[in-house]
Amino acid sequence: MTGYGKDYRSIAADKQRQRQDKIPEQWLIDAQKYDKATNLLQVPVTCGILNEVECQITSDYDATALLEKIQGEVWSVEQVTVAFCKRAAVAHQLTNCLTEIFFYEAIERARQLDRERRESPNGKALRPLHGLPISLKDSFHIVGQDTSTGLACFVNDPAEQNSALAALLLDLGAILYCKTNLPQTIMTGDSDNNVFGRTLNPHNTNLTAGGSTGGEGALIALRGSLLGVGTDIAGSIRIPSLCNGLYGFRGSVGVVPHGGVRDLAVPGTDGVRSTAGPMATSIRDCQLLMKAIMESETWRYDSTVVSVPWRGLRVREKLRIGLVEDNGIDTPSPPIRRSFNEAARLLQGINEIEVIPLSLPGLGDIYQDLVRYMAPLGTEHYSELFNRTGEPAIPSLDTIGLMSVEGTTLKGFFEMNARRQEAAKKYLQLFCDNRIDAILMPVAAHTAVPWDKWANATYTGLWNYLDYPAVVIPVDKVQDTDLADDVVHAKYGPGDAELYKLYTGPELYSDAPTAVQVVGYRQMDEALLNTAIFLDSIINGQKQ
Amino acid sequence: MTGYGKDYRSIAADKQRQRQDKIPEQWLIDAQKYDKATNLLQVPVTCGILNEVECQITSDYDATALLEKIQGEVWSVEQVTVAFCKRAAVAHQLTNCLTEIFFYEAIERARQLDRERRESPNGKALRPLHGLPISLKDSFHIVGQDTSTGLACFVNDPAEQNSALAALLLDLGAILYCKTNLPQTIMTGDSDNNVFGRTLNPHNTNLTAGGSTGGEGALIALRGSLLGVGTDIAGSIRIPSLCNGLYGFRGSVGVVPHGGVRDLAVPGTDGVRSTAGPMATSIRDCQLLMKAIMESETWRYDSTVVSVPWRGLRVREKLRIGLVEDNGIDTPSPPIRRSFNEAARLLQGINEIEVIPLSLPGLGDIYQDLVRYMAPLGTEHYSELFNRTGEPAIPSLDTIGLMSVEGTTLKGFFEMNARRQEAAKKYLQLFCDNRIDAILMPVAAHTAVPWDKWANATYTGLWNYLDYPAVVIPVDKVQDTDLADDVVHAKYGPGDAELYKLYTGPELYSDAPTAVQVVGYRQMDEALLNTAIFLDSIINGQKQ
Repeated sequence: MTGYGKDYRSIAADKQRQRQDKIPEQWLIDAQKYDKATNLLQVPVTCGILNEVECQITSDYDATALLEKIQGEVWSVEQVTVAFCKRAAVAHQLTNCLTEIFFYEAIERARQLDRERRESPNGKALRPLHGLPISLKDSFHIVGQDTSTGLACFVNDPAEQNSALAALLLDLGAILYCKTNLPQTIMTGDSDNNVFGRTLNPHNTNLTAGGSTGGEGALIALRGSLLGVGTDIAGSIRIPSLCNGLYGFRGSVGVVPHGGVRDLAVPGTDGVRSTAGPMATSIRDCQLLMKAIMESETWRYDSTVVSVPWRGLRVREKLRIGLVEDNGIDTPSPPIRRSFNEAARLLQGINEIEVIPLSLPGLGDIYQDLVRYMAPLGTEHYSELFNRTGEPAIPSLDTIGLMSVEGTTLKGFFEMNARRQEAAKKYLQLFCDNRIDAILMPVAAHTAVPWDKWANATYTGLWNYLDYPAVVIPVDKVQDTDLADDVVHAKYGPGDAELYKLYTGPELYSDAPTAVQVVGYRQMDEALLNTAIFLDSIINGQKQ
Repeated sequence: MTGYGKDYRSIAADKQRQRQDKIPEQWLIDAQKYDKATNLLQVPVTCGILNEVECQITSDYDATALLEKIQGEVWSVEQVTVAFCKRAAVAHQLTNCLTEIFFYEAIERARQLDRERRESPNGKALRPLHGLPISLKDSFHIVGQDTSTGLACFVNDPAEQNSALAALLLDLGAILYCKTNLPQTIMTGDSDNNVFGRTLNPHNTNLTAGGSTGGEGALIALRGSLLGVGTDIAGSIRIPSLCNGLYGFRGSVGVVPHGGVRDLAVPGTDGVRSTAGPMATSIRDCQLLMKAIMESETWRYDSTVVSVPWRGLRVREKLRIGLVEDNGIDTPSPPIRRSFNEAARLLQGINEIEVIPLSLPGLGDIYQDLVRYMAPLGTEHYSELFNRTGEPAIPSLDTIGLMSVEGTTLKGFFEMNARRQEAAKKYLQLFCDNRIDAILMPVAAHTAVPWDKWANATYTGLWNYLDYPAVVIPVDKVQDTDLADDVVHAKYGPGDAELYKLYTGPELYSDAPTAVQVVGYRQMDEALLNTAIFLDSIINGQKQ
């Protein structure tokens, strides 16, 4: 039974109660205790729910290192799974990051994997992701779980079939144990909806956790998961990765199976397509997941994939990196400017790297078309979904202005496509003429901003429009020296000024992560990962 | 200057005169001498234009073997190029297969390649297609040549930029020397237009050479080229391959660069996309071209490619082949039925092959949508192009009914997309559930038919709709025993009956080639080629 006819408030109350009941009583924390804290990052290891080994399992490794420990039988799959279920439960109580909780089923599966391994000790090779807990954005179908995507009308309608990616991850040996929160419509920079409420940013609860994959962002920041999968149609992996200090990879369309993901678009909508990709605590974990997926027969799982296989490419010995400090629409705020320049300076100091300052042509027109692609038939289908249970639009929907996007005609749609084809030619030429391997640029003009203020995706959306892979690399966080400066620095008109004014200095923005974005050639995801790993070793090498 | 304002007849007369002037006088034949012959296949070697070595060069090898001879310096690139220019000139005089002739430039380039090789005798490795003449369908841009696509309004407007594929082939070392004829609109099964007129089928001039890549079909059948490239949006590579007894490979969309091809669709039209691929005298030549392309950096040439690399896959030891004798819309005519069954019987006799009879679900509805995808905005843009010079529609346009396709709305278009996504799921499941490697089926319900009677593409278009790669393997030709049978055998209504009646027995259809089609998984072009090479060795092995 879906929620037709019932009021969204009673649906949400029931759903939240059911969700709460999925957390074992002994894993409950006194969340009120942390009400006044804005930075929650240490709570999972101090709250007393996880024992020492569980703290170690969940704190000390990235997914790649953890997989080695599992493979080496340092810890059983069950131990690892329980540890992450506990930590995810804590993370959820702190930030409201989970939508569906199925710890019980996950632990059962973990025991099963351990049993199978014991029973065939000299047996077959372990699967590539054997025993690794992986969290998924709510929009992926998992059999027996809702895929409400935060809409009351879709509550209590458990999936009967796995999304292609969920099926593939299970076949690769992963443990699925929870799904994560996202915004109503899956389109805003605040992971907030009328069913589950808002996910908080554990770095600074005054700021947004980002969207649309904000639940993953908060969960992974608290290490309730080391590897999650989001989707990105204009920045929905990269924005929460920035907000939560994570690595996030927006793969080229179809490289990661996206079949059977609930994306709320009118069925058959084409143009700019949503794409799936990893969010993680290390860049090599993004590679781990992409490699495991691209080495598998994705095309057997999903009729919509683009079959770009993993090739084992070698890292190039010399790299040419285009530098884009400012996209000509939104002026980067002081902490973004500082950390971009810091990253650029580190790259400039390396022999193997040549940097080439670039600007992005035609982005104003491109961005207008990108917004049109988000709702080519207008937004009535969203209103219709809201109306089924009487739910109102969330505040951040107003901020991004999605509901006022007007539809177009078939002729208008093809004209958009034609402009996009021309832009694609121009950008390929920009890359080829400058012989660059990748572009380094901000992820947004700002860090995470206060709730419901995230207004656009001009730094990320271009790469969806062109279908270029792009990855977020964290740099540091807002520093005491990142003072707000005068709005006169905002060069691109009133919209820019309004955004620029949001940054009021390090007090409100304390601990907000900063990051850069690295962008590669369309469908050259593997090459981009190689490049990003090298750049990350320079930008973050000394910290590690 | 394009042909705006001028009458199409004077444009065509001038253009044909210019084309004629591109043939050296000593290569002219007395074409009237062959007016009464219906089978012209032997004329190139009997007409006296080619000397003995030139006959050998053009007759005795496929492209793969010829490349070896060039690489081994048995013949110079110039010798080879001159031989194919001569043979193409003869083929053209017999069948009217060429649109643009640039023998002079080709021979100059051949000399240049020979010179470069002499000057660096221990020098760098030869490029993969060093010195190999390759012919292209007229719709590919080649700098300095018209891309009229048989429309008077586009005559005298030489291209300023190569199509991505032309640029790539030149970089791979190929020699481009001519472009080939196609139908007005590039959409019918008769390669006929008001600028160049009709291309004849050299196997039987009473029958169509097929379309839309019919010029290539006739040229390669007469071995005026060993390797040509066509495009296929519903069967335009495969239909002329069938009609002319050739191998023809419809690659998955974007695997072969299609950027910068004039396809006459309204700019930005999306949905079912045209795709490029080889036509050749051997299956391994299709592989030769696909491998050379897929091993190169196609994505640097073209912002529209799908970057599926060549992987060096091994041939599977056991194959499961689905058999589809009849598509449920058009009943195969007696020679098609016979040669399909003959091919199926040969496969059944092989240990490594298991055959599984299959039927194609939902093809009636799919085909209707495919037709809608051919002109989602209707056909006014074609009329507008015709009207510029007052040219009438060719007769075969009436036969296929293209000009009566009505446009749809954006909503209707997305509904078509949604149905297509459902069909894609269903067909992937059909392949996976039956664990088949490929499907064997007819290319059409009939062989080449009399002029202007080719009415549909129900056997080929499904694979464009689903974007599955498909290859044509010739089987034999119409036999004296292929008697016409009663129309009562046509099971699927009046349209089927009308088509079925076209086959009147072996007299009119003498020497008409028969063929089968082999279809593989989407974007698994390399695996399909491996499968097709094996099946061809069984079907045609004993003849070789």
